[in-house]
Amino acid sequence: MKIKRETMKGNKDVLWPDFNTPRTDLAVEARDIATRRLGVQEIPGVISETASTKHTTISRVKVINEQGERALGKVQGNYVTIESPDLTSQSRDVQQEIAQVFAQEFNGLVHLAGNATVMCCGLGNWQATPDALGPRVVEKIMITRHLYGMTPKELRGGMRPVCAIAPGVLGITGMETGEVIQGIVNMIRPDLVVVIDALAARSTNRVGTTIQMGDTGISPGSGVGNRRIGITRQTLGVPVVAIGVPTVVDAITIASDAMDLLSEMQGAKPAGAVPYPGPGGPAYGVPSEQKQYLMRQLLQPYMGDLIVTPKEIDDIIEEVSRVVAAGLNAALHPNMDWDRVLEYLS
Amino acid sequence: MKIKRETMKGNKDVLWPDFNTPRTDLAVEARDIATRRLGVQEIPGVISETASTKHTTISRVKVINEQGERALGKVQGNYVTIESPDLTSQSRDVQQEIAQVFAQEFNGLVHLAGNATVMCCGLGNWQATPDALGPRVVEKIMITRHLYGMTPKELRGGMRPVCAIAPGVLGITGMETGEVIQGIVNMIRPDLVVVIDALAARSTNRVGTTIQMGDTGISPGSGVGNRRIGITRQTLGVPVVAIGVPTVVDAITIASDAMDLLSEMQGAKPAGAVPYPGPGGPAYGVPSEQKQYLMRQLLQPYMGDLIVTPKEIDDIIEEVSRVVAAGLNAALHPNMDWDRVLEYLS
Amino acid sequence: MKIKRETMKGNKDVLWPDFNTPRTDLAVEARDIATRRLGVQEIPGVISETASTKHTTISRVKVINEQGERALGKVQGNYVTIESPDLTSQSRDVQQEIAQVFAQEFNGLVHLAGNATVMCCGLGNWQATPDALGPRVVEKIMITRHLYGMTPKELRGGMRPVCAIAPGVLGITGMETGEVIQGIVNMIRPDLVVVIDALAARSTNRVGTTIQMGDTGISPGSGVGNRRIGITRQTLGVPVVAIGVPTVVDAITIASDAMDLLSEMQGAKPAGAVPYPGPGGPAYGVPSEQKQYLMRQLLQPYMGDLIVTPKEIDDIIEEVSRVVAAGLNAALHPNMDWDRVLEYLS
Amino acid sequence: MKIKRETMKGNKDVLWPDFNTPRTDLAVEARDIATRRLGVQEIPGVISETASTKHTTISRVKVINEQGERALGKVQGNYVTIESPDLTSQSRDVQQEIAQVFAQEFNGLVHLAGNATVMCCGLGNWQATPDALGPRVVEKIMITRHLYGMTPKELRGGMRPVCAIAPGVLGITGMETGEVIQGIVNMIRPDLVVVIDALAARSTNRVGTTIQMGDTGISPGSGVGNRRIGITRQTLGVPVVAIGVPTVVDAITIASDAMDLLSEMQGAKPAGAVPYPGPGGPAYGVPSEQKQYLMRQLLQPYMGDLIVTPKEIDDIIEEVSRVVAAGLNAALHPNMDWDRVLEYLS
Repeated sequence: MKIKRETMKGNKDVLWPDFNTPRTDLAVEARDIATRRLGVQEIPGVISETASTKHTTISRVKVINEQGERALGKVQGNYVTIESPDLTSQSRDVQQEIAQVFAQEFNGLVHLAGNATVMCCGLGNWQATPDALGPRVVEKIMITRHLYGMTPKELRGGMRPVCAIAPGVLGITGMETGEVIQGIVNMIRPDLVVVIDALAARSTNRVGTTIQMGDTGISPGSGVGNRRIGITRQTLGVPVVAIGVPTVVDAITIASDAMDLLSEMQGAKPAGAVPYPGPGGPAYGVPSEQKQYLMRQLLQPYMGDLIVTPKEIDDIIEEVSRVVAAGLNAALHPNMDWDRVLEYLS
Repeated sequence: MKIKRETMKGNKDVLWPDFNTPRTDLAVEARDIATRRLGVQEIPGVISETASTKHTTISRVKVINEQGERALGKVQGNYVTIESPDLTSQSRDVQQEIAQVFAQEFNGLVHLAGNATVMCCGLGNWQATPDALGPRVVEKIMITRHLYGMTPKELRGGMRPVCAIAPGVLGITGMETGEVIQGIVNMIRPDLVVVIDALAARSTNRVGTTIQMGDTGISPGSGVGNRRIGITRQTLGVPVVAIGVPTVVDAITIASDAMDLLSEMQGAKPAGAVPYPGPGGPAYGVPSEQKQYLMRQLLQPYMGDLIVTPKEIDDIIEEVSRVVAAGLNAALHPNMDWDRVLEYLS
Repeated sequence: MKIKRETMKGNKDVLWPDFNTPRTDLAVEARDIATRRLGVQEIPGVISETASTKHTTISRVKVINEQGERALGKVQGNYVTIESPDLTSQSRDVQQEIAQVFAQEFNGLVHLAGNATVMCCGLGNWQATPDALGPRVVEKIMITRHLYGMTPKELRGGMRPVCAIAPGVLGITGMETGEVIQGIVNMIRPDLVVVIDALAARSTNRVGTTIQMGDTGISPGSGVGNRRIGITRQTLGVPVVAIGVPTVVDAITIASDAMDLLSEMQGAKPAGAVPYPGPGGPAYGVPSEQKQYLMRQLLQPYMGDLIVTPKEIDDIIEEVSRVVAAGLNAALHPNMDWDRVLEYLS
Repeated sequence: MKIKRETMKGNKDVLWPDFNTPRTDLAVEARDIATRRLGVQEIPGVISETASTKHTTISRVKVINEQGERALGKVQGNYVTIESPDLTSQSRDVQQEIAQVFAQEFNGLVHLAGNATVMCCGLGNWQATPDALGPRVVEKIMITRHLYGMTPKELRGGMRPVCAIAPGVLGITGMETGEVIQGIVNMIRPDLVVVIDALAARSTNRVGTTIQMGDTGISPGSGVGNRRIGITRQTLGVPVVAIGVPTVVDAITIASDAMDLLSEMQGAKPAGAVPYPGPGGPAYGVPSEQKQYLMRQLLQPYMGDLIVTPKEIDDIIEEVSRVVAAGLNAALHPNMDWDRVLEYLS
């Protein structure tokens, strides 16, 4: 049982770090923002490439040094984004295509032995819909570790030993997600940990259209639920692939952008205006302290706990979790035929 | 099963009627907006009074003629709002106080015979958390109609015959909520219909703090789910009391208000600016067509389907539904002692 | 909220009508029992035929007169049973085959115009797993009635207007299921009503392996939840097809059969023994009053409210509901291709 | 996602160890069976005492040596059973009384320092109603470990640091429940582990009326879900208290008892009959191999996977989990007043 909200209310009013650098958990958005802010085509320390299939666009962003880390606010490593406006289309063919792209990109990020044990962790709070993506994916993953030992070698046919858990969130368990996972990892000793989490995006058009995967694990403070500690190769001692899907935009981001867009349109450059990474290059946004004053009127008493999400978020979570689970099942059990993978979608 | 979203996508882009009259389902908000817009203390055709208890503020708004209807955008009738910042406090004493206030105000709105049959309808989509308030209340209502006939008169002790249903939403059943309710009403012939629905508010500080009840039923287009047809005494042939609780603010409202607040602060009065009902009297807001242009950039592709809601909305819905159900159980079964009413809270 | 159990406890101890005619909701079981009891090959007033496909056996039982009604305890009409040990196999190919057989047999029972409106009703209590089959099927049915009017004629392509509801049970709504359905039918005026319900079988090997459909609607007292009034063409004024799937066996049936089997094996023919329809022709079972005495020791305090069900009943309900929904979607929207029908399975 | 049932079907047909020693997870039932079988009043190696309150009967069974272990099939330790026919009565007063008895007996079993960290584990499968008791209790436990460090000492007021998890079952996670718990225990290092599990009883009148607690942990093979490995002080390195509530009776037990009761009533003593612990002292039951032959006819194809449970099992689980959680909250946070404990019931 969760302790009543008041107990936490203290930090509702906490100052947003800086209203002019709204939060995004997506490397591809961070890259675009940095590009606009810096007014450059290529960001030093960051290598980008894109590819596409019939229904998807694939962006691969590699942060190669500290300069890139500072520019993007992301640690060194590989980030792949798969975008498709049809991600939640309910079309079997399109979902299969996206799941195949997912499996290929996953296998490009991490190289697994045929008999590698994989542990999947669905982060987030299953009682809070926009944060429930991880637990919903994990329900659909094909669990085989407990059968692997009993299955004769010749029948395993491209099946790897896979186990999974949804460890819950701090408010529900009283334990840091990272503590729970680390304890289990120490017992099970998997060769790879895959964490799946719901993310906050900068822009509403990312919600339900984008899947990110990366080989750097989960950073503290990211995700809809703002995980407090990181879940990374450093903390766990095994490689960690993080899968993230934007399901919300912070209300603060929407309100801040609304003000900046208006300010930009009006061509106003009020005293204290700061350069804002507008769509057409640097513009002048509204000073952070003005925003903060207005936010208090607009978003009280919840402030940073307000999210923007489509009404149909329950459906979006269900459909995206089907595609992600199908992609993971295909990547982890490589020789299964697609009909079987799709059978397991639901 | 719901048909895929694309089918509906056409109307995603629909023009918001007027960005300078943001939607509210609350009479008390509509009154405050009208007061500010008109720059008056009392609105012709509208009678207001307030009262309070230790943890609640009660506002009674009566719309008495067509002038009042036009000013508030609400049909003639009585609207009672119970406000309490402690509505979701999980404190048993506070919840009991609010439920008692609820029961008193309910009994002030409608006068029921001791053996009147009451049918409660929980509107909304149980699969979409912010719209699930009605179904969640209905689960907690003490159902007695099927036992009433079997119970000897002397044992009924202040128990009225109560039945209830959550009729679902158009996308799930293929039937208008109003059609389903009317069909059942024709069979059951209750003396009163109570509808419970989740509402959209103008302001985030209404979410999880406010309960509205009114004797005018449900108007078309109101509620989180935008019911298409009204559920009123006219359509059903029996009195209808509507209970509503704000669970969301439209993202368009937040974005629009952010722009207006900024505009007001900057003292700008751009060409075409319209009077805006600011907190300090009429101010000049951003013209509707400018807002519309900016909204498209900000809220695509979901637009009017984006809602703002606290992360912890699942908890808020659960706690508010407990209080509303306790209030209804107390109002409908008047001689039950409070311990039994509270036993039934969960 | 359901009123506490004690209120009902009175009828827990009710005498089972006759322990030597255990309850079955399946016409095919009733036929087999009657055949054994009467020691005949063909029962007067009953016409039977069977067919089969790779994974299914189809039995068509037609009760043609009152003699047949008395012998089977089923009203005149057509009953089709589809049996498959692979019904819950999770194999896409097998499920497609069974769903196709379902659609063919459904279309053999009832002849629908291309634009006929169909209303599906999922009977049962969604809060009680073995009784939740109906509501679970209804969730998966393709709902089109609300879109039909908006869709141009040339695009409807074999889509019929279909609506659906899970009306709940008496203990939850305070209203008879039949009252609720009749009220809605009066408003919607469908051309066909399809009711889906969980059944009690005589034998555990029917659970999760058998689907029954019939054109006589639902009789009072049948189903896991023992519906109190019938839902038939007579009560609703429109044709009714009833789909039923055995999900439980009454514990009384198991205990009674255990005694009879033992008695038969021991060759005992105690004083007062009655002929028992054993597998090898009439045998002598245990007298009903002896059974009743022993049942009280064995099954107190729940008696007739005890059910026997597999541990994995939640999984069985999920899988069977997918197959039944796929079969209904195929039968009601005849020109859809199978890939689309199967997309909608989940 | 769970792998399809067939994979496991092999062990469906497994021989029940001995049909004349039906399974019970309750020490008090094992004691009663042993007493009858041995025809004695006191079992060597077992000490029993009883107590009672207005609505409960308390039995304390202590197994003190190997002789007692063999007689009862339970390891040495303390087992307390709280029985109340009113456990699921929905009466607040009765539930409070039972929860208070629970807290006292719990504190009699284990002596906790005021600042001891306690980890609660809800065993069982939340997707299978009769096995979901543990997860349902854990949802209602007052979680404080994450707040404890932040709370000033003077405000902690009898609050202990409590954390909790529902670790899932082997078929869902691919990991033994014991592995998961041990990993987390190694990280968190609690002073006490409390495991809550659904049990199988011998007799239907135990279902929903009995709570057992013991200081010996969980033995392999016990519980509705047949946990494969033990969860004990030996395996975890910390004291373990196990809370168990019977939610099912094996169908094999019911069928076996039906045969024995009939056999006893008929006074038959067939060739090979074995002494059966009948209510009136040793009687002659049906030989195990005869039972096995009959069981195959009666319970195919599920056999040992068939359970007997009341139709209303979902309600029973909900109510019992409220009482157990209230008892645990009272025992673990001793200075909280009862109103607050009961607030947290739901």
